[in-house]
Amino acid sequence: MNTIARTTSAHPSATQIQAVISLLRERFGDQLSCNGTIRQQHANSTSWHPLEVPDAVFFATSTQDVAEVVKLCAAHAVPLIPYGTGTSLEAGVNAPFGGITLDLGRMNAILQVNEDDMDCVVQAGVTRKQLNTYLRSTGLHFPIDPGADASIGGMASTRASGTSAVRYGTMKDNILALTVVMPDGTICKTGTRARKSSAGYDMTRLFIGAEGTLGVITELTVKLHGIPPAIAVAVCAFPDLASACNTVIASIRYGLTLGRIELLDAVQVRACNAYSKLSMQEKPTLFVEFGGTENAVSEQVEMFRQIADEFGCETFENASAPDERSRLWTARHDVYWACLQLRPGSKFIATDVCVPISRLADCIVETHADIEETGVVAPIVGHVGDGNFHVSVMANTDDAEEMERTKDFIGRLNRRAIAMDGTCTGEHGIGEGKREFLKEELGATVGYMRQLKAALDPNNIMNPGKIFDL
Amino acid sequence: MNTIARTTSAHPSATQIQAVISLLRERFGDQLSCNGTIRQQHANSTSWHPLEVPDAVFFATSTQDVAEVVKLCAAHAVPLIPYGTGTSLEAGVNAPFGGITLDLGRMNAILQVNEDDMDCVVQAGVTRKQLNTYLRSTGLHFPIDPGADASIGGMASTRASGTSAVRYGTMKDNILALTVVMPDGTICKTGTRARKSSAGYDMTRLFIGAEGTLGVITELTVKLHGIPPAIAVAVCAFPDLASACNTVIASIRYGLTLGRIELLDAVQVRACNAYSKLSMQEKPTLFVEFGGTENAVSEQVEMFRQIADEFGCETFENASAPDERSRLWTARHDVYWACLQLRPGSKFIATDVCVPISRLADCIVETHADIEETGVVAPIVGHVGDGNFHVSVMANTDDAEEMERTKDFIGRLNRRAIAMDGTCTGEHGIGEGKREFLKEELGATVGYMRQLKAALDPNNIMNPGKIFDL
Repeated sequence: MNTIARTTSAHPSATQIQAVISLLRERFGDQLSCNGTIRQQHANSTSWHPLEVPDAVFFATSTQDVAEVVKLCAAHAVPLIPYGTGTSLEAGVNAPFGGITLDLGRMNAILQVNEDDMDCVVQAGVTRKQLNTYLRSTGLHFPIDPGADASIGGMASTRASGTSAVRYGTMKDNILALTVVMPDGTICKTGTRARKSSAGYDMTRLFIGAEGTLGVITELTVKLHGIPPAIAVAVCAFPDLASACNTVIASIRYGLTLGRIELLDAVQVRACNAYSKLSMQEKPTLFVEFGGTENAVSEQVEMFRQIADEFGCETFENASAPDERSRLWTARHDVYWACLQLRPGSKFIATDVCVPISRLADCIVETHADIEETGVVAPIVGHVGDGNFHVSVMANTDDAEEMERTKDFIGRLNRRAIAMDGTCTGEHGIGEGKREFLKEELGATVGYMRQLKAALDPNNIMNPGKIFDL
Repeated sequence: MNTIARTTSAHPSATQIQAVISLLRERFGDQLSCNGTIRQQHANSTSWHPLEVPDAVFFATSTQDVAEVVKLCAAHAVPLIPYGTGTSLEAGVNAPFGGITLDLGRMNAILQVNEDDMDCVVQAGVTRKQLNTYLRSTGLHFPIDPGADASIGGMASTRASGTSAVRYGTMKDNILALTVVMPDGTICKTGTRARKSSAGYDMTRLFIGAEGTLGVITELTVKLHGIPPAIAVAVCAFPDLASACNTVIASIRYGLTLGRIELLDAVQVRACNAYSKLSMQEKPTLFVEFGGTENAVSEQVEMFRQIADEFGCETFENASAPDERSRLWTARHDVYWACLQLRPGSKFIATDVCVPISRLADCIVETHADIEETGVVAPIVGHVGDGNFHVSVMANTDDAEEMERTKDFIGRLNRRAIAMDGTCTGEHGIGEGKREFLKEELGATVGYMRQLKAALDPNNIMNPGKIFDL
């Protein structure tokens, strides 16, 4: 882990920082830590971006705590970096200008479960697994699954999604209201528990995906969904990437209600075989999940099988018993670890493009050729029902030449998606890593985003250096 | 129609107005009209709010036209009121400070239909019926149905929804990207055709529901959906409102995939019987639609029948043939006309509360008692799957005492919904009519909405007097 020098221009002075630290210490005692290890742990650690550590870490226990800390930071122009579980892939929790990291992990209370309304109110530090464990007896679940056991607040802040978005949408579709501490310390509610509303600007959606740059989300009212009475999965191998992608397009066009539809390319399947001791055909492979009544699920599986056959599917395995289902999904679940083992000693560099589904085959096939030409180790896994896929570049970050090649490859990948009327980030966010691509993607619109930021956070204390360059 | 005096404080001077009118006339000729009848037609005319007419009406034919008009208005600080089909129920197209009404009706081109991606790009003036007629051969449709044949741009601007929201969501859930002319005349794209994105602030959702106060939407990329292969409807009468509401809660909790679920109270059924020459039981009645494969639909109808029986359903009629279905839906479609006939000479005053579904029965039952006590003629119809219902007060707007009573009743209704953690508007918007209730509902948050408005539209030229008081 290398700590880089901070840009000093926007950095608060040591006096400002010390003033805030003293006042917080006096008011909150042990809730503040200046311990070096704790500060390091709270800087970005799940991606390849260099570490940028904060000056102190504050452990909040209530919205009121957060409001007090924000007011203090605002008064002294000290940056504040909200922190959930630290699983950002774009250095969202780095502290490029120092300041106070606001750890919300202790705010992990589930405040209300409204079964009839199929919603619940949680504090921002509740993780998705914690919530689903808590909900187990209700027959309801919170289905958004970004892989990591992230906090619900963090997931909202990056507009996260994952494998189940093809059915349930993303975080933007599953939040009814937020409690937010604004950059001046005011506590706001952005909505009500009504399922829909036309009451003024959509402040809820403004904070979802704002990566903590407009305020601190402290509570969330989220939608819950019924767990389908029957679930089945299918795993099927295709002769090439285009056939697999075309099967996805046809299934969605046909109106199949897919719970999940994931693509692994041949390199990823090989990595999974090696890691999980499996013997899948090393071909582009779709993992599909169906949910509904037993009859509806059987019907959907059969319709899917016919579509897959039409596109030359070579093997088709399906299962509905829980053990069998989890055996079939093993490979998909272990993708991250399988990648790391594929090239020991390398770092995992995530990418996250998303294109209109009609361009998915083109985008993946072109990217695959680019991987071969560039000579990088880079398996592909995709939430293909949404047109979203991740190339995981397994790179030796100490090799400057390789990193140069890798960055060029990632640049081409992002530009390829943008040229296809897609985006450089389907679900990870901009963070520090994609600021230049955001400008390429949305042009003048980014200037107006900055105007909104300046209006709500005139001193730029809220997670500065994320989404926008300074 | 009575024209009220304008508040002069925020009104531009006659010189400013004349300057803009001369310049527009010179540049665009007949695209500008100062004709009195045309100006009247373009002020609010579908609700009971007094008319406030603009100084001129401009008929735009392109985004470029709009950009030029906005730049001129910005340079002379003249208000600009975007106009689609004029079906706002909250006086969204009124011109309280005069200025130029921007009619987008001629911008009605369907620019792209991307069948594989299930999306299309339309100009803002395309109406939903026009779009669905155009899509007929594709098997796809744009399902959002607010009743009126509104323009897609107008529907986006009020975050509209209607009968199908329980299945397809609202406008906020069905738009991928917008082209917007900003208050300074810059043309912006808010997103791409990717199905999901984490690329910066959600500018798309910021303009959806902004009622034209932040810029002019000129093009929209909207999601399309497959038309289900089989559709069935059921109409069932209940002994009381609570049983009907509880049937809705149970059906949703059970995970039935309802296409629509609408409630008519006994007064509304009586009005419909009289207007449409039907002989339905004059009891609280649910109209339900199911869509999917033939098997799935039969299964859902059967499950729904069991739930309805459990709550004491007294009659249950269902049909799947198109003619039969449309016979059953007749009463629901004719609600507006039936209401007008219920009290000839009266005006239709719309209300639009939405509450968490667990509070729906309470809210409707209490409101029903209030109607009786207040002595207003006010049938109820509801998109009850979302907890949204409309009390249509049929009032003699010339009777000051009755209007006083009516306004008090509407105030109590809105406050009742807000007290139940609901909203004063599920789908109509704030416009001029609900500005005070917005403040009651969201408190301090409204101040931050104003900050956003001031940041993007510092001269307050974009549809001033809507959402916020001046």
